[in-house]
Amino acid sequence: MFKKICIIGCGLIGSSLARAIRKNHLSSKIVSSNRSDSLNKKVIELKIVDDSSSDTKKMAESSDLIIIAAPLSSYGNIISKIKNSLKSGTILTDVGSVKEGVISLIEKDVPENVSWIPSHPIAGTEESGPEAGFSELFKNKWCILTPSKRAQEKDIKLLETFWKKIGSKVDIMDAKQHDYILSITSHIPHLIAYNLVNTSLNIQDEKESAIVKYSAGGLRDFTRIAASNPIMWRDIFIQNKKNTSKMIDKFIEDLEDLKKAIENEDEKKLEKIFIKTKKIRKDIIEAGQDVETPDFGRK
Amino acid sequence: MFKKICIIGCGLIGSSLARAIRKNHLSSKIVSSNRSDSLNKKVIELKIVDDSSSDTKKMAESSDLIIIAAPLSSYGNIISKIKNSLKSGTILTDVGSVKEGVISLIEKDVPENVSWIPSHPIAGTEESGPEAGFSELFKNKWCILTPSKRAQEKDIKLLETFWKKIGSKVDIMDAKQHDYILSITSHIPHLIAYNLVNTSLNIQDEKESAIVKYSAGGLRDFTRIAASNPIMWRDIFIQNKKNTSKMIDKFIEDLEDLKKAIENEDEKKLEKIFIKTKKIRKDIIEAGQDVETPDFGRK
Repeated sequence: MFKKICIIGCGLIGSSLARAIRKNHLSSKIVSSNRSDSLNKKVIELKIVDDSSSDTKKMAESSDLIIIAAPLSSYGNIISKIKNSLKSGTILTDVGSVKEGVISLIEKDVPENVSWIPSHPIAGTEESGPEAGFSELFKNKWCILTPSKRAQEKDIKLLETFWKKIGSKVDIMDAKQHDYILSITSHIPHLIAYNLVNTSLNIQDEKESAIVKYSAGGLRDFTRIAASNPIMWRDIFIQNKKNTSKMIDKFIEDLEDLKKAIENEDEKKLEKIFIKTKKIRKDIIEAGQDVETPDFGRK
Repeated sequence: MFKKICIIGCGLIGSSLARAIRKNHLSSKIVSSNRSDSLNKKVIELKIVDDSSSDTKKMAESSDLIIIAAPLSSYGNIISKIKNSLKSGTILTDVGSVKEGVISLIEKDVPENVSWIPSHPIAGTEESGPEAGFSELFKNKWCILTPSKRAQEKDIKLLETFWKKIGSKVDIMDAKQHDYILSITSHIPHLIAYNLVNTSLNIQDEKESAIVKYSAGGLRDFTRIAASNPIMWRDIFIQNKKNTSKMIDKFIEDLEDLKKAIENEDEKKLEKIFIKTKKIRKDIIEAGQDVETPDFGRK
């Protein structure tokens, strides 16, 4: 399918992609670029890629497909390194969780005849690093493409086929819509989990051991989400700050409302809300979006 | 161990208890009392109990151990039905998630020579009803006893042995402390999950199908928690409203703080918080409180 694929950032997602590409014979050559030399060494040793170096420009050269799988805050740096060595016909994509900001950031630097087509595979685990990756990570997961103005129709089709070949279901949508929907389905849930665990830590003080001991009552499963990659999530919240901020306000408004109902012992209101929230699970199960083991989606 | 055990309310927890009692040969006779006749019929048919009837007084009579496994709001009604038929030496316990209010509620009605010793097994699934119960539910889970003033030392020991025989680890603590700790480790996490799913439902409108479709990004795993028994949780929040209210305030304060950090693009602050929250998982794993499959603890 491709002659050379370059993955920039070979962590959980990047290394899973490399493994899936290899397994499905989608490229003759797979290379990666990581800032850390020990990581470059490791991914070669693990035979995840054929070559790997911190020289991003060199790795990206003559690639047909370049996948940025690094934190959102590093995109500016990455594009400045590679923009002058992109060959005509190259497809440039990424796997980031927020789209609107980075699309325009990169759009202005992409040369003619390079298609810049952001991807967002909604897949992940709570682990990090290349050892945690596996080739089946994207299987039956949604991958959303948000093509930039610099995207040729034939390349969008090709990239769609690429994701399908590694097992994903593909949707194409507008970046703005993507960022809004994902703020509801992914970003805010993660932020709320981080905040809950943070609040527990702030008040635990003398009760620390008791909180850990009885965490199975519910808190434990939030700590799973709140253990996700700190840098990655810091970048997501900042990049999607407009939606994040708006959703936090709505969340707090609803929480104040719930608090009032509890204080007033308004049984009917509480019951009504809890019955309503119970129903959405049915929809999710019917849509085939439930799994045996919660994985809190994309890290 | 006992001659007759009566379980009032044979849902997930009650029926799991009945199964565990039977399996471990802890009582010659097991009966239950449910308000619904079809439920009484069902638990007899399923051979979970030897007898079951809506006549709570009759079922409770001559029992050595009575376990209330019904919603907290029904305790007043239950104790008024059984108080005149409790035999001397009976142990009365429950499985409720909030202790302070119900302890005093029942304490004043308990006759001499009856030990009222509330229990809280921190175990559960998101399912409801007797079909969902299983005998291993309490295995390796904590069970907290909060003895009332009406509790004899020998009976506390006996009840402790009972829980240990069905696989639980037992702790004894003050009711007030229990309600405070559990509000952090269980009640607030559930309330936050309910609120998050409620907020998503309130804003989804035209995006409903998109939210269900991409729920694997994180929201899905909150809907699991927010699908827990509405009546049970309504009662928990109301019974523990002082702690709940206080914790909501702290949670909102921290969330406003996080929001400000995101709006100010305060990378350092965000990173610091997310690294801190990541660490508590290690403690939980080291304390043996993690599981392969999140179960969100006690329903």
